[in-house]
Amino acid sequence: MNTAHREAILLTPGPLTTTLRTKVAMLRDWGSWDSDFIAVTARVRSALLDIINGQDSHVVVPLQGSGTFSVEAAVATVVPRDGHVLVLDNGAYCKRAARLSTLMGRKTTVAAFDEAQAISPQSLEAHLQADGSISHVVMIHCETGAGVHNPLHDIAEVCARHGRGLIVDAMSSFAALEIDARRIRFDALIAASGKCLEGVPGMGFVFLRREIVAACQGHSQSLAMDLHDQYVYMEKTGQWRFTPPTHVLVALDEAIRQFQEEGGQPARLARYESNYRTLIQGMAALGFKPFLDPTIQAPIIVTFHAPGDSRYEFKAFYQAAKRYGFILYPGKLTQIETFRVGCIGAIGPVEMEQAVQAVRLALRDLGIASGAPA
Amino acid sequence: MNTAHREAILLTPGPLTTTLRTKVAMLRDWGSWDSDFIAVTARVRSALLDIINGQDSHVVVPLQGSGTFSVEAAVATVVPRDGHVLVLDNGAYCKRAARLSTLMGRKTTVAAFDEAQAISPQSLEAHLQADGSISHVVMIHCETGAGVHNPLHDIAEVCARHGRGLIVDAMSSFAALEIDARRIRFDALIAASGKCLEGVPGMGFVFLRREIVAACQGHSQSLAMDLHDQYVYMEKTGQWRFTPPTHVLVALDEAIRQFQEEGGQPARLARYESNYRTLIQGMAALGFKPFLDPTIQAPIIVTFHAPGDSRYEFKAFYQAAKRYGFILYPGKLTQIETFRVGCIGAIGPVEMEQAVQAVRLALRDLGIASGAPA
Repeated sequence: MNTAHREAILLTPGPLTTTLRTKVAMLRDWGSWDSDFIAVTARVRSALLDIINGQDSHVVVPLQGSGTFSVEAAVATVVPRDGHVLVLDNGAYCKRAARLSTLMGRKTTVAAFDEAQAISPQSLEAHLQADGSISHVVMIHCETGAGVHNPLHDIAEVCARHGRGLIVDAMSSFAALEIDARRIRFDALIAASGKCLEGVPGMGFVFLRREIVAACQGHSQSLAMDLHDQYVYMEKTGQWRFTPPTHVLVALDEAIRQFQEEGGQPARLARYESNYRTLIQGMAALGFKPFLDPTIQAPIIVTFHAPGDSRYEFKAFYQAAKRYGFILYPGKLTQIETFRVGCIGAIGPVEMEQAVQAVRLALRDLGIASGAPA
Repeated sequence: MNTAHREAILLTPGPLTTTLRTKVAMLRDWGSWDSDFIAVTARVRSALLDIINGQDSHVVVPLQGSGTFSVEAAVATVVPRDGHVLVLDNGAYCKRAARLSTLMGRKTTVAAFDEAQAISPQSLEAHLQADGSISHVVMIHCETGAGVHNPLHDIAEVCARHGRGLIVDAMSSFAALEIDARRIRFDALIAASGKCLEGVPGMGFVFLRREIVAACQGHSQSLAMDLHDQYVYMEKTGQWRFTPPTHVLVALDEAIRQFQEEGGQPARLARYESNYRTLIQGMAALGFKPFLDPTIQAPIIVTFHAPGDSRYEFKAFYQAAKRYGFILYPGKLTQIETFRVGCIGAIGPVEMEQAVQAVRLALRDLGIASGAPA
């Protein structure tokens, strides 16, 4: 509990701080078979397609579980059992994608990139030229391990030119960074309820290119993860195959309404960019140094070097910031000590100013004069 | 929308009607990495083990997604890749279990039983004697396809005597029917948040026998479904591997508190039995006939024969009952026209009386004089 007895603001990559209006939508129970709930499912699916201008080119399939469940489902559904997946790896979530692809028995190759750099379309080009057996490329749009904004447009262009499938984990970018299905060709793109749409966590969703959907039948060895099966059933009945997370879906529906009222993706990006600038400037004044070069930094989550001061210890720093009302996030880099601060959720520059102030007070409580790294 | 503009009461096998107190618990956002949330996860896990008296013999692993995700995860985690699963099939959910087991590549045999009868321990005995390669038996405690209460104790006894593993889908029975891990030997038992604990849907949980947990490493071909991996990570960190459905978990925590206050499983069963008796008596007075023999009927969900009157049509009947405030459920039998009425959720005999009255009015609106079957 923080000193003010108010709930802390989450500066994490999800779950996020959501609006009360979004949460209040959960104060009702819904029959999953009922026409009222079927209408909510249909409305959410249509709104999701609108966000990527994908009504003509794509379908969207919601799936129960966390975002990772949907990533696994996308690979299991889209990649044939004798397919070959190339994972463009510049972070922890890429490694997770490679692991789940390998585990389900798909041939998987990892193209390793520096976690402080964006993945490279030129390198992808070379991989695809060298190995004609690669059927699908997996990339992460915003790698929240460090916070890198990867070049979706250029990667998609290379895949399209070589006629290979592209699976995009857009978990942390969808609804904030621009993704236009009319300009970017992908077979599958994955996101989740509890990210930049500012819903609560509990379901993901996968956009599938209409042209590939029929061919996906029978790929998945998992019943629960079979997006083709989920899609066919949903088209036929309007219902989910298995019990949907009803309250999570109605919260997402309400969150999408607020997203639309705010002005959609451009407005959301503008707010997150404003949050990001406020954070970066305030933290710089305290001596903190971001890990990434600003040119590849997404305004989603920022990795900072840990302070060099010997009194710094993440857990104590975290607890202190929490006392002042803000939940930070640990770093996920293997070599360097860092911590992360999210810029997303139902918060604006006012909250980011307060967050910087909380960090300032946390440093003071720990007797640390400056956030400057070693 | 029903005429009274109040939300309808759900007489379905889940999602259920939950208390406002349970839903209000969702009006806060939680950091999944934070110690406050870790404490909720630990509290829920411990309370779940208490319900089956399983603190010494079992561990419990929560999993994101619907109950079916947890059933699939249990089979994927517990059964080795060269294992042989025997599914004791007396209904639609048994067939689903056989399908997911087959799909993931486990050798699967189905022992078919009449959907109007309980599964038979004697028949299981014969199957296990005839085929020594059967490593695991899958059964459903309460088959909500028709509503049958299957003989868990006797089936477990046969499995134990033959040294075969037992996986129990207790989705619709857990917390209502007695399950005592000190008296019943099982390798895995599965239930979910949105059933008789009266939480909201969005997560399942699997009890695993402590003695088998270590040997489960590496069985699952699915990363998301790997309960061993989820367990090891959770024991080490207190956290879920992937983003948990935070609001669903805190609602379950609050629902469990009310379950304990009510008097635990015996009290919940008593309330559901009272609901069941009120329903059966009221429906009998309207001419309706239950599908099952009362000796094998669980007080969870009741299948009724459709009225024989030619004016009966389920959709119209459903809409009429909904206008009077109650959501019924379609039948799931292949041969006979039926509908189902749940006895579970945060409702008591008063609501069941009202439900019968809603059915009476629905019949009147449809011009049907009696609920008697053909």
